[in-house]
Amino acid sequence: MKKNNNKPSCKDLEVVNNEYADRDYEINISIPEFNCVCPRTGLPDFGTINIKYTPKNKIVELKSLKLYIVKYRNEGIFHEHVTNRIMDDFIRAANPKKITVFGDFHPRGGIKTTITTSK
Amino acid sequence: MKKNNNKPSCKDLEVVNNEYADRDYEINISIPEFNCVCPRTGLPDFGTINIKYTPKNKIVELKSLKLYIVKYRNEGIFHEHVTNRIMDDFIRAANPKKITVFGDFHPRGGIKTTITTSK
Amino acid sequence: MKKNNNKPSCKDLEVVNNEYADRDYEINISIPEFNCVCPRTGLPDFGTINIKYTPKNKIVELKSLKLYIVKYRNEGIFHEHVTNRIMDDFIRAANPKKITVFGDFHPRGGIKTTITTSK
Amino acid sequence: MKKNNNKPSCKDLEVVNNEYADRDYEINISIPEFNCVCPRTGLPDFGTINIKYTPKNKIVELKSLKLYIVKYRNEGIFHEHVTNRIMDDFIRAANPKKITVFGDFHPRGGIKTTITTSK
Amino acid sequence: MKKNNNKPSCKDLEVVNNEYADRDYEINISIPEFNCVCPRTGLPDFGTINIKYTPKNKIVELKSLKLYIVKYRNEGIFHEHVTNRIMDDFIRAANPKKITVFGDFHPRGGIKTTITTSK
Amino acid sequence: MKKNNNKPSCKDLEVVNNEYADRDYEINISIPEFNCVCPRTGLPDFGTINIKYTPKNKIVELKSLKLYIVKYRNEGIFHEHVTNRIMDDFIRAANPKKITVFGDFHPRGGIKTTITTSK
Amino acid sequence: MKKNNNKPSCKDLEVVNNEYADRDYEINISIPEFNCVCPRTGLPDFGTINIKYTPKNKIVELKSLKLYIVKYRNEGIFHEHVTNRIMDDFIRAANPKKITVFGDFHPRGGIKTTITTSK
Amino acid sequence: MKKNNNKPSCKDLEVVNNEYADRDYEINISIPEFNCVCPRTGLPDFGTINIKYTPKNKIVELKSLKLYIVKYRNEGIFHEHVTNRIMDDFIRAANPKKITVFGDFHPRGGIKTTITTSK
Amino acid sequence: MKKNNNKPSCKDLEVVNNEYADRDYEINISIPEFNCVCPRTGLPDFGTINIKYTPKNKIVELKSLKLYIVKYRNEGIFHEHVTNRIMDDFIRAANPKKITVFGDFHPRGGIKTTITTSK
Amino acid sequence: MKKNNNKPSCKDLEVVNNEYADRDYEINISIPEFNCVCPRTGLPDFGTINIKYTPKNKIVELKSLKLYIVKYRNEGIFHEHVTNRIMDDFIRAANPKKITVFGDFHPRGGIKTTITTSK
Repeated sequence: MKKNNNKPSCKDLEVVNNEYADRDYEINISIPEFNCVCPRTGLPDFGTINIKYTPKNKIVELKSLKLYIVKYRNEGIFHEHVTNRIMDDFIRAANPKKITVFGDFHPRGGIKTTITTSK
Repeated sequence: MKKNNNKPSCKDLEVVNNEYADRDYEINISIPEFNCVCPRTGLPDFGTINIKYTPKNKIVELKSLKLYIVKYRNEGIFHEHVTNRIMDDFIRAANPKKITVFGDFHPRGGIKTTITTSK
Repeated sequence: MKKNNNKPSCKDLEVVNNEYADRDYEINISIPEFNCVCPRTGLPDFGTINIKYTPKNKIVELKSLKLYIVKYRNEGIFHEHVTNRIMDDFIRAANPKKITVFGDFHPRGGIKTTITTSK
Repeated sequence: MKKNNNKPSCKDLEVVNNEYADRDYEINISIPEFNCVCPRTGLPDFGTINIKYTPKNKIVELKSLKLYIVKYRNEGIFHEHVTNRIMDDFIRAANPKKITVFGDFHPRGGIKTTITTSK
Repeated sequence: MKKNNNKPSCKDLEVVNNEYADRDYEINISIPEFNCVCPRTGLPDFGTINIKYTPKNKIVELKSLKLYIVKYRNEGIFHEHVTNRIMDDFIRAANPKKITVFGDFHPRGGIKTTITTSK
Repeated sequence: MKKNNNKPSCKDLEVVNNEYADRDYEINISIPEFNCVCPRTGLPDFGTINIKYTPKNKIVELKSLKLYIVKYRNEGIFHEHVTNRIMDDFIRAANPKKITVFGDFHPRGGIKTTITTSK
Repeated sequence: MKKNNNKPSCKDLEVVNNEYADRDYEINISIPEFNCVCPRTGLPDFGTINIKYTPKNKIVELKSLKLYIVKYRNEGIFHEHVTNRIMDDFIRAANPKKITVFGDFHPRGGIKTTITTSK
Repeated sequence: MKKNNNKPSCKDLEVVNNEYADRDYEINISIPEFNCVCPRTGLPDFGTINIKYTPKNKIVELKSLKLYIVKYRNEGIFHEHVTNRIMDDFIRAANPKKITVFGDFHPRGGIKTTITTSK
Repeated sequence: MKKNNNKPSCKDLEVVNNEYADRDYEINISIPEFNCVCPRTGLPDFGTINIKYTPKNKIVELKSLKLYIVKYRNEGIFHEHVTNRIMDDFIRAANPKKITVFGDFHPRGGIKTTITTSK
Repeated sequence: MKKNNNKPSCKDLEVVNNEYADRDYEINISIPEFNCVCPRTGLPDFGTINIKYTPKNKIVELKSLKLYIVKYRNEGIFHEHVTNRIMDDFIRAANPKKITVFGDFHPRGGIKTTITTSK
């Protein structure tokens, strides 16, 4: 579990070659087991992260994506920021033609929030 | 509970800086525990308020939004008006690039109403 | 129950002033307890009437709308006609910027019909 | 439509011989298009009537059951009473070995009621 | 299609040996594509037939069961009778330890019927 | 049942005058009790036929549509063809401004097919 | 709204005579618009109260039940207690043969609670 | 993939000690990715296998259970038999206090079968 | 976040007096945000823990229950064991008349497990 | 089962003439029983393949499509590649005007992937 104490970084995301780089197609990845820590209360926040992208030359390898996501477990970060930060890391790693990251977080105090960001 | 006797005001809505103000992204907030008072019967009316916005420089802090919404509990107001009034207060507080407020109210007399307003 | 023997008329629809007439917003009213009489069999036909409109200066008051709808209980009329007739009465009463009336009727003889009309 | 002005009566329920009277089996009839009139407001009340019975020598013919149910359209009667009255009429007409009548009524004032009665 | 003009008979149901006849276990078969003809209107009636049984020495072969069921397509028969008749044919063919046949028929005139018979 | 031996024809579809021919509105008819015969196996194929159209001067009468559809029960025809043929018959009978026919067929061999055709 | 400042009391529950007191039947009432106040945070708590009872000589009148329930809006009380207290008041008012009260409360801090109490 | 050519055997199921053998508790395992081969057509059959058991001294290790289940991919076997055979292998491996195996198979020819066997 | 490094203990569960200890009633608590660590892979495992109990003299306070559950985040433990261990801690803390703990864990390798234990 | 050892090829896809080649219509085929083998673990991967196309002169015959799909059972291939490869084979066989292939794969390690490719 030592690894989990490290901060998530775009370097955690391994990529493989896209064999169909000549055509535009869409990869949609859903990760319903996301959790991070609320910077105010120190309690865990749960949610689903959805990543939809059109690959250019690189596809993100799913096992490395999972390990990258697991690293957020002890990270204190707001919903709005984490959704954008995951998109930025993904762009740095795979430089897709198009990308949308959607964060769907469990309700707190009876209020539910989702964040959608694209490039 | 003294606070709840006060009227809801745009000043109740606290804001924080948007760290990703350079990009357009969408925040979607759902508040299924809204209630106000029917101006005709004096009985409580229940519903869900949904706020979807693209922030400019400011993000509305969720805890203050909740306390603002709670203040409608003793407010006598029609469905059409409360949906538009929440949008106006939200604009005054956070001045978003785009906003839609959707009010979905419980049926009365077998008739269900929803209101959608945007800017 | 004497009132129900009368025919439904646009005069049954009371209106109130729209306080937000300067902006376009949408009001969506769903009435799942509609029924009229089949002109052929004399048996009751059931359905849901949905009215979605963007108000100009007037909003239709919901209680009067309900009483107007109840008057169709003893009215012999086809699905296609009643959907269009409700829209015409609504336009005469409130003159909205935009309106769609949707009638969703229970199946008869294993066939289900819906009607959508707009202006 | 003259017939509908008459009161519903057990005599409206026609029966046919049960060809399998030597065995116990269950017939379950669901009538989602029930409506009667609220004795207080004069407005129509909607609901579903469910009749589950084990026939003795007689089976209730479905078309006559439908016409019997339609007669409640102009009948002012409470939910608790109409459910029990339908069961009593059914017993008088078909004398089943066992019967349960379940009435599931649309909410009024945000309160929903169901009634279950058996013999 | 000549075969379909024949009447369904228990002889259509082929059986195979039950290799686990020493234990009680349950086989549940659902046939959502049943149809027969209404003896009154001559129009087709649709439904689902469900057969749940504990086999003794014989299991009913599914392809023969399907062909047996298809033969009802041109058979004029009431819901109550067809459910019991299928059970009787099944018992004659496979003599199960226990059996329940459930017929769930599409609504006619807004009324839905199900029949459950067991031995 | 003699009628069912005849082939379905556009002449089976009766039409009535459209009282609202001056406006474009949509009629959506769903027939979940369609069946025909597989030309290869001779076994019945089940599905739902959906017809959505904008009437010009004529509306198709629903009872005649039902009887027309029933005639396919003994017709050997492929999914792709029957969906297009129903549209062609409908156009010949009612000449609508716009029409879409959607056929949604039960799976065979674990494969499910739908067909959508428009004019 | 003055009435709402009063505490809920069993005296608020009006009763009418049960016309079918000679038979056991069940009345099931669902009130999805319950809310009270959390004694710790002073914030409103939302939920559904379900009351299922077999009446003896008295039936609780639904409008008075609604007004009784509305009085909890400003009452600081825990989930476990309010469910039992509603049952006690109901017993004092109507003395039913059997009763179950079920309280189903919205999640707080990601934890959802329901309470079921019977007599 | 050489392993998959082997036949599934109870020896594939590894067990671990049950630390709570002094109490009766239930373990419910659902495997929605089961497939075997139809002995008649040679085509794959799909389904879900559900195993519910009360362990005695041994718990079946899930990874070995998965590998055991995968071995059925090339096994020609009927639905009724495979459900009972899995139960027999499970009993040989872990000797539970109670066990139920439920097989829920995809429809073939419009007929769906489930098998439930217990000890 | 220092607290989370501690092991969960029954001492974390605070209790309050049960004001209705003279009657048997049921409290049902659902915690959908449970996670612990797989002892084999070191990766987080997700699930829902459901606790249903009939209190004797003590009720478990929900906030302390939440903090107790959060402590499992870094605990390496199997599904079967954690479900039983939570029940044992709950019994030590509140000594209920009856209790059932149900653990419903996310699928791993396409296999889903639930555990139910009672006292 | 010898055939299944062969690799899937576009030559497996038989075509028939499109009788309605003069009009654009859409055929949507859903195959929920797809499986192939993970190139890394050697374990089977499950999913649904959806093919939506507008035929030119040829329609793909469904039985041959099924046998083509079955051949992937022992094929080691990644999700992204198999979705694109099926589209390429389909184009070679039937040369449709438009085509979209959608692959929806079961979650692995808590991560679910779908692939959408079009031409």
